[in-house]
Amino acid sequence: MPVAMLRGGASARLILASGSATRADMLTRAGLAFDVAPAAVDEDSIKASLKADGATAHQLADTLAELKAARISAQNPGAFVVGADQVLVLDQQWFDKPADRDEAGRNLQSLAGKSHQLVSAAVVLRGGERLWGHTDHATLLMRALSEEFIDHYLDAAGDAVLDSVGCYQLEGLGAQLFQRVDGDYFTILGMPLFPLLDFLRGHDFIPA
Amino acid sequence: MPVAMLRGGASARLILASGSATRADMLTRAGLAFDVAPAAVDEDSIKASLKADGATAHQLADTLAELKAARISAQNPGAFVVGADQVLVLDQQWFDKPADRDEAGRNLQSLAGKSHQLVSAAVVLRGGERLWGHTDHATLLMRALSEEFIDHYLDAAGDAVLDSVGCYQLEGLGAQLFQRVDGDYFTILGMPLFPLLDFLRGHDFIPA
Repeated sequence: MPVAMLRGGASARLILASGSATRADMLTRAGLAFDVAPAAVDEDSIKASLKADGATAHQLADTLAELKAARISAQNPGAFVVGADQVLVLDQQWFDKPADRDEAGRNLQSLAGKSHQLVSAAVVLRGGERLWGHTDHATLLMRALSEEFIDHYLDAAGDAVLDSVGCYQLEGLGAQLFQRVDGDYFTILGMPLFPLLDFLRGHDFIPA
Repeated sequence: MPVAMLRGGASARLILASGSATRADMLTRAGLAFDVAPAAVDEDSIKASLKADGATAHQLADTLAELKAARISAQNPGAFVVGADQVLVLDQQWFDKPADRDEAGRNLQSLAGKSHQLVSAAVVLRGGERLWGHTDHATLLMRALSEEFIDHYLDAAGDAVLDSVGCYQLEGLGAQLFQRVDGDYFTILGMPLFPLLDFLRGHDFIPA
């Protein structure tokens, strides 16, 4: 698909504080102009700390999104900075991105035959101040998977599975993993796009 | 995204009886191997006839999908032929693809500020016999749109809007049109993918 632009008159810079190619692609396809500045935060220690505090997955995704945006906002005080994060929840357990193929295989075995949730958060900061935030979730029912299928799938999908907390890309071979999916597609991809576009429209980054 | 394959052992040919690049892309990304053979049916007269009979949009989409598949199945009796169709319904009225930019503008004015349904059907025929069918729908709430915005949007989106009955591609600039979307993403793109993959898995076109 050719990429067309549909921009508003905002003069402030828009920065996406995420290294996810999928999130950048979502905003590009929706017609926006923006810069990308991936922010590194220590996700493991934040997760552990929030878990100990009894936080929900929505709170975790929102906190991680805000911390990423805050790091980039501090370096770019005039810009609108979008932070985003996604958390996978199965049986009240938060999953991490697989480190390697073996872990991806074990994760898929855990997810197979069950429903899990993908919780996605987006926030916007300017000058370190939080202007907006939204969290949404989708529910995905994975079909039962044989060990043989998981092997074939990991062979075919290659390293792309390591980019996703669920070891799948729904817009690719990952479609073969599912029986049913309920929820917003963009939330599944990693960011609640419609509410974010609504906020950006209100600040003239896209036309009303 | 690189295109990877994940095929089963079926020896029969699989044919997609649709000229839609989006539908072919869905199957390709899901890892399938297939041929494309667009089928022309007289949609206008079929719609008029079914309308007169009091048919539902689900029945219309299913009938059009089956007629397209039947045409191709007659020419390829040993193949599994997938037919698909999509109908847009607003206030009990069925929409057609816009013929030109003016009609696209009028359609968007009708859709703006309201919810409409996209009804998608897929069927599979072999040797002229219907083996399987599935129909699903999604509900999309379009935001209120100014005439000025519609103009900007049509300028930016170009001829791509004429390929879609709703004058939008949700995976492109069309995202700017919506406030909320409920339903399966693949149904919105034009074909209920998960049920179709389930059927194809049962016939070894993809691995179980």
